[in-house]
Amino acid sequence: MSGLLRPGAHRAAGVADDAAVLAALLRVESAWARALVAAGIATEAEAAQVAAAAAGVDVDLPALAVASEAAGNPVVPLVALLRDAAGDAGGAVHRGLTSQDVLDTALVLLARDAVARVRADLVVAGDALAVLARTHRDDVAVARTLTQWAVPTTFGLRAAQWLAGVGDAVARLDGLTFPVQYGGAAGTRALLADLAGPDAGHSDRAAPALADALGLTATDLPWHTRRAALTGIGDALTTATDALGVIAADVLLLGRPEVAEVREGAVAGRGGSSTMPHKQNPVLSVLVGAAARQAPALAGQLHLAAAGAVDERPDGAWHAEWPALARLLELAVTTASQAAELVAGLQVDPVAMASRVDAATASGALDTRGATGEAGRLVDLATTCWEETRG
Amino acid sequence: MSGLLRPGAHRAAGVADDAAVLAALLRVESAWARALVAAGIATEAEAAQVAAAAAGVDVDLPALAVASEAAGNPVVPLVALLRDAAGDAGGAVHRGLTSQDVLDTALVLLARDAVARVRADLVVAGDALAVLARTHRDDVAVARTLTQWAVPTTFGLRAAQWLAGVGDAVARLDGLTFPVQYGGAAGTRALLADLAGPDAGHSDRAAPALADALGLTATDLPWHTRRAALTGIGDALTTATDALGVIAADVLLLGRPEVAEVREGAVAGRGGSSTMPHKQNPVLSVLVGAAARQAPALAGQLHLAAAGAVDERPDGAWHAEWPALARLLELAVTTASQAAELVAGLQVDPVAMASRVDAATASGALDTRGATGEAGRLVDLATTCWEETRG
Amino acid sequence: MSGLLRPGAHRAAGVADDAAVLAALLRVESAWARALVAAGIATEAEAAQVAAAAAGVDVDLPALAVASEAAGNPVVPLVALLRDAAGDAGGAVHRGLTSQDVLDTALVLLARDAVARVRADLVVAGDALAVLARTHRDDVAVARTLTQWAVPTTFGLRAAQWLAGVGDAVARLDGLTFPVQYGGAAGTRALLADLAGPDAGHSDRAAPALADALGLTATDLPWHTRRAALTGIGDALTTATDALGVIAADVLLLGRPEVAEVREGAVAGRGGSSTMPHKQNPVLSVLVGAAARQAPALAGQLHLAAAGAVDERPDGAWHAEWPALARLLELAVTTASQAAELVAGLQVDPVAMASRVDAATASGALDTRGATGEAGRLVDLATTCWEETRG
Amino acid sequence: MSGLLRPGAHRAAGVADDAAVLAALLRVESAWARALVAAGIATEAEAAQVAAAAAGVDVDLPALAVASEAAGNPVVPLVALLRDAAGDAGGAVHRGLTSQDVLDTALVLLARDAVARVRADLVVAGDALAVLARTHRDDVAVARTLTQWAVPTTFGLRAAQWLAGVGDAVARLDGLTFPVQYGGAAGTRALLADLAGPDAGHSDRAAPALADALGLTATDLPWHTRRAALTGIGDALTTATDALGVIAADVLLLGRPEVAEVREGAVAGRGGSSTMPHKQNPVLSVLVGAAARQAPALAGQLHLAAAGAVDERPDGAWHAEWPALARLLELAVTTASQAAELVAGLQVDPVAMASRVDAATASGALDTRGATGEAGRLVDLATTCWEETRG
Repeated sequence: MSGLLRPGAHRAAGVADDAAVLAALLRVESAWARALVAAGIATEAEAAQVAAAAAGVDVDLPALAVASEAAGNPVVPLVALLRDAAGDAGGAVHRGLTSQDVLDTALVLLARDAVARVRADLVVAGDALAVLARTHRDDVAVARTLTQWAVPTTFGLRAAQWLAGVGDAVARLDGLTFPVQYGGAAGTRALLADLAGPDAGHSDRAAPALADALGLTATDLPWHTRRAALTGIGDALTTATDALGVIAADVLLLGRPEVAEVREGAVAGRGGSSTMPHKQNPVLSVLVGAAARQAPALAGQLHLAAAGAVDERPDGAWHAEWPALARLLELAVTTASQAAELVAGLQVDPVAMASRVDAATASGALDTRGATGEAGRLVDLATTCWEETRG
Repeated sequence: MSGLLRPGAHRAAGVADDAAVLAALLRVESAWARALVAAGIATEAEAAQVAAAAAGVDVDLPALAVASEAAGNPVVPLVALLRDAAGDAGGAVHRGLTSQDVLDTALVLLARDAVARVRADLVVAGDALAVLARTHRDDVAVARTLTQWAVPTTFGLRAAQWLAGVGDAVARLDGLTFPVQYGGAAGTRALLADLAGPDAGHSDRAAPALADALGLTATDLPWHTRRAALTGIGDALTTATDALGVIAADVLLLGRPEVAEVREGAVAGRGGSSTMPHKQNPVLSVLVGAAARQAPALAGQLHLAAAGAVDERPDGAWHAEWPALARLLELAVTTASQAAELVAGLQVDPVAMASRVDAATASGALDTRGATGEAGRLVDLATTCWEETRG
Repeated sequence: MSGLLRPGAHRAAGVADDAAVLAALLRVESAWARALVAAGIATEAEAAQVAAAAAGVDVDLPALAVASEAAGNPVVPLVALLRDAAGDAGGAVHRGLTSQDVLDTALVLLARDAVARVRADLVVAGDALAVLARTHRDDVAVARTLTQWAVPTTFGLRAAQWLAGVGDAVARLDGLTFPVQYGGAAGTRALLADLAGPDAGHSDRAAPALADALGLTATDLPWHTRRAALTGIGDALTTATDALGVIAADVLLLGRPEVAEVREGAVAGRGGSSTMPHKQNPVLSVLVGAAARQAPALAGQLHLAAAGAVDERPDGAWHAEWPALARLLELAVTTASQAAELVAGLQVDPVAMASRVDAATASGALDTRGATGEAGRLVDLATTCWEETRG
Repeated sequence: MSGLLRPGAHRAAGVADDAAVLAALLRVESAWARALVAAGIATEAEAAQVAAAAAGVDVDLPALAVASEAAGNPVVPLVALLRDAAGDAGGAVHRGLTSQDVLDTALVLLARDAVARVRADLVVAGDALAVLARTHRDDVAVARTLTQWAVPTTFGLRAAQWLAGVGDAVARLDGLTFPVQYGGAAGTRALLADLAGPDAGHSDRAAPALADALGLTATDLPWHTRRAALTGIGDALTTATDALGVIAADVLLLGRPEVAEVREGAVAGRGGSSTMPHKQNPVLSVLVGAAARQAPALAGQLHLAAAGAVDERPDGAWHAEWPALARLLELAVTTASQAAELVAGLQVDPVAMASRVDAATASGALDTRGATGEAGRLVDLATTCWEETRG
């Protein structure tokens, strides 16, 4: 799908493109060979050979993509390549795994890294918002409800609410877990049991070793048909795009020329028009807002797939997860990066805000009993709370 | 929307119907009057009068529904009724609140109660699944992947995975918070500040008092435009329907006459056909499965609304939440109840399962190296883990 | 689900509530008895008795709703009641049908009537928009792209585009078909073939007779598992809410106090605030806008169900259609009615628009080469085209 | 987004990848120069120079993708390149257009070509299904409703229903229109009016000339904010994946080893397992089924965007369309191709079906009154109807 139709996707390079997926799959296979050593089922030499093969294997990506259809997934043909590359350690490649073990773990790896990137950009955005909130703590502005002027507020409180939204998202991301998948052909881990004996406790060693090698969480049970880890990731990333979408939508409204209370920072060469040379479009806000409209359907897709995860490993429901998750990872990373830049560059006009409060008050449109109420105190609370959340 | 088209919705009586919504709104207004006492802004006598008015007010529900459109929400006309009913304490009714404060808090109340009902039925289902898992711990069955026979497993492990899915959902529900909303007209809490003075700390007392009275959580900041609490509820309930949907889908597959390994429990008068008197339809599984297809879109609706929560209180995005949330609460409560009954009545045929394993093995279709692997140990893990999760 | 949470739903009374669903089911059963006469399988006397029974049967709706769950759908218990009520003509009730035949046809009946109501309100809205377009054909206004001022346009052209959107929706609705369902137990029409003989051509007579009696379309083939008729209805209704949503969103933007170019018509008692007595909220626009955010997910639900319509009659996918379709019918009827009222009452301020054009021009923000271009001609085209579309 | 996670996407090469999008954009700009000649606003020589520039322009695609973000869309930077490449005809490049004119028209071009490819593969599938339906016209099989055996049917009728579903989809695709977009900066076509004079009727010539050059439909009005053409395309393509999804889901059910009535055709190297060498997975059915779960959300995304198309050209709602449409085009083309192959290779076992009918009849599970009813006649109707539909 063309990058020309996903403006900003270059910010998500390495998140879920061919190279990233391939690298993640190879990391998993390589880490598994090491886990087999921990379980007493492969030798150090074999693990080293597999790792070397994974590092050096020459993969024709378009050919692998084609072969992925024939196999139903990319792991099957990749394992064949890897076995060839591993020479006499080929038998240790993928030993005891099913393709879903590898692909699920690889997707979790990609998700873990994407979430880390999103979180980092949320912290950048949050820090900038905290500055805005404190700077404009007492700058009055008109509060709007159902589009109409209502009462006075402060721009500080508006920024503080944006900040608290970012904080909500960070907290949600921080609650995620990123488990490895290991179940074997149908979730019984039978093949290794066969090699190691059912009481040998090989899983007790193999699964944690795999998790350690990849920096993921070990799980007691395979989750081939229980997808709450993935849906949780989708939900949390959407919680992030929700919060960023609110900021973008507010910036678009407050940046309309009739309002002109904030303005997306001007950057040379950005926001130009193909017909009107002097027009400046709020491009980042538009793109962040567009993303926030797209994420919910992608997260919903993950739930839908989760609800259809039948049998010991599902038909179709599993496959429907991949593009939704990959696209959501890309979208969230892109959007968080754009939003961080948007917030950092935001131009705020407190004079315009104050003038509007005066005009609205004069026209009787504002209810000024209590004026800005506890706005200042709420700003302080939000910025203090942020310090804890950001970690 | 007709109950005839939502079979089983009677199980969710009181969840989000007119009477429940009205009662929740009145509870909030009544609790708020008491919170005003805590904040030093109303007298005990006023609070008592408001409570009495809320208990006794005569509401014409259809008329209130009509009036809800004119006001944009049901709180405005209800407050008018309540003020009338409260006589000379009318001034204390709704003092300092905005309608969104009341409706949001009422929705959270309904959600809290619905989540409790869902959790209770998940525990019923989980306990029954734990029994199934233990009972059939070592009963062999064919494992199917991508619809085809793969390797042997046990029915105990299948039940254990269903159980673990229920456990995932319970854990997700247990992580939810149910905050009160209190922000006043535009999130500054200005009106009370006006009455009590900005440094009087009235919110420090009012919001917690409201939360205490309702058994909800106090929050430092209003969340008129930050909807992560609601999207979190939607996500968690969908995680529950996902898990139950998997069980239902598996029961439907395993209960097909060609498979006949499990069977939905027969209940007199259930599952009949309008044309074929002797046919027995797996009604509960069908309905649970149907619900699992519906929940993701409803949860997605909440995210979509969250991403559009502009200004100090939004236009339209807020209103789009209500039917989605109400329907999701109803759907989740209904589905959990049906699923609990489904699981409790499930008829399992280990002999049929064993015969199929034999036949599949004989035909060379099963890979029996390692046989059922660690299935037994995984059952033990899942049932032990459940004991902790269920609490 | 409480009407308090669906403001304006009273406008959709009779669309898909209990009484409407029951009436539609009874109409179908009654019409079928007459169709059996046409097919030579029932007598006139039997048909009359069935019709009388359908007209007079005493149905306890809550009890029927409960029984609907046990049967999986409301037709099974209703047929039992109807057979009792029909006395010795009981054998002719539902003869040769499956419950899906009856429920599908009843849903199409409800949809047909709802679509007619939506269309009628679209015509009301369109006529009012045509007047607006012609009245303000040459009234200049600022055109906004990506939120920023761009070039001059006319308010007439804006109204003409709203009108053309309504016209698109009417055209889509006019392309719909509303087929009866008749397939018998599993789509073979076997039972009647048994009664009438396979070559008796009874279906050639029965299905058209059913269609005639109900004012629906006869179809050659049953469509138990082909749901394009229903998804088409959902798509078209969503096309309508899309178009109305654009109008509402524009009215909300243009009615912001900083813009103040249009204003939702004031109606006594509408748009009030619970805290700010003098505030006037654009309630209809808010509700229409909220609806437009909800419809796409409901239409998507119908497609999702359609894609899962397995076997000869599906498990769950069918059941998942009902609440989505019922809710979408209700939502579309409500929304079209609200939008018609919104448009009819719209207050337009051409002076404010002209002043803004002047100010924007003076500030250099408008590109006035070509001024309003072909705006006038496009208005004329749109209004002429509307005359054809509205019929 | 990695092709490894979208198995089969290579079938959609050229549908919506970078090269295809770029080519479509250049085709539009080139065709527009010719349209300007028709309108008397550019010379033949200029048009030829623009065409040559478009044919020869050297585009660094990754750089263009990056520049697309800065501009908000790819047209702005591409026009700059093209103007440079066109030398002294640079002034004729994009004259009078806005970037949305070009991108919308290019997307319609891509959609038109994708729809043609989908239609072609639907015809391949339909023809194969017609053969299946006729071949097995009288081969009895068990009909299943709500997963349970119900009555006898024929495999011919099942295939005929699949065929009729394909026919529904073809009919829907054949009703689509593919309009060019031409509105200029804000839908008034002002710039050309300035060049040609408002009464010069240039649009009467330019828009049809553009449409002719591209094989698209001319439209009287710009549709920058009316997106029914695009939502219609999304709805129709989803109607296609719905129909194909039903076939795939049925094949998966009927191909389960316990049922074994049909089987996906074996192809060397397809359907292998990474752990179980002899296992054969129904890969095409799985992938088609997975696609059918994804399309509804993508089509819904288009409606959601349509409902938010505010102002004269929208902020964000427009941008949210592109990835959804591109992905849906790719998915539909891939899926239709896979489905055509699936159907063509389907292996049918009428003996197994007949045996099951016998066994089910013997066990009393089938209601054989009327036996297969009108199944044969319905097959004849469906295949005859298909001949008309396929054209």
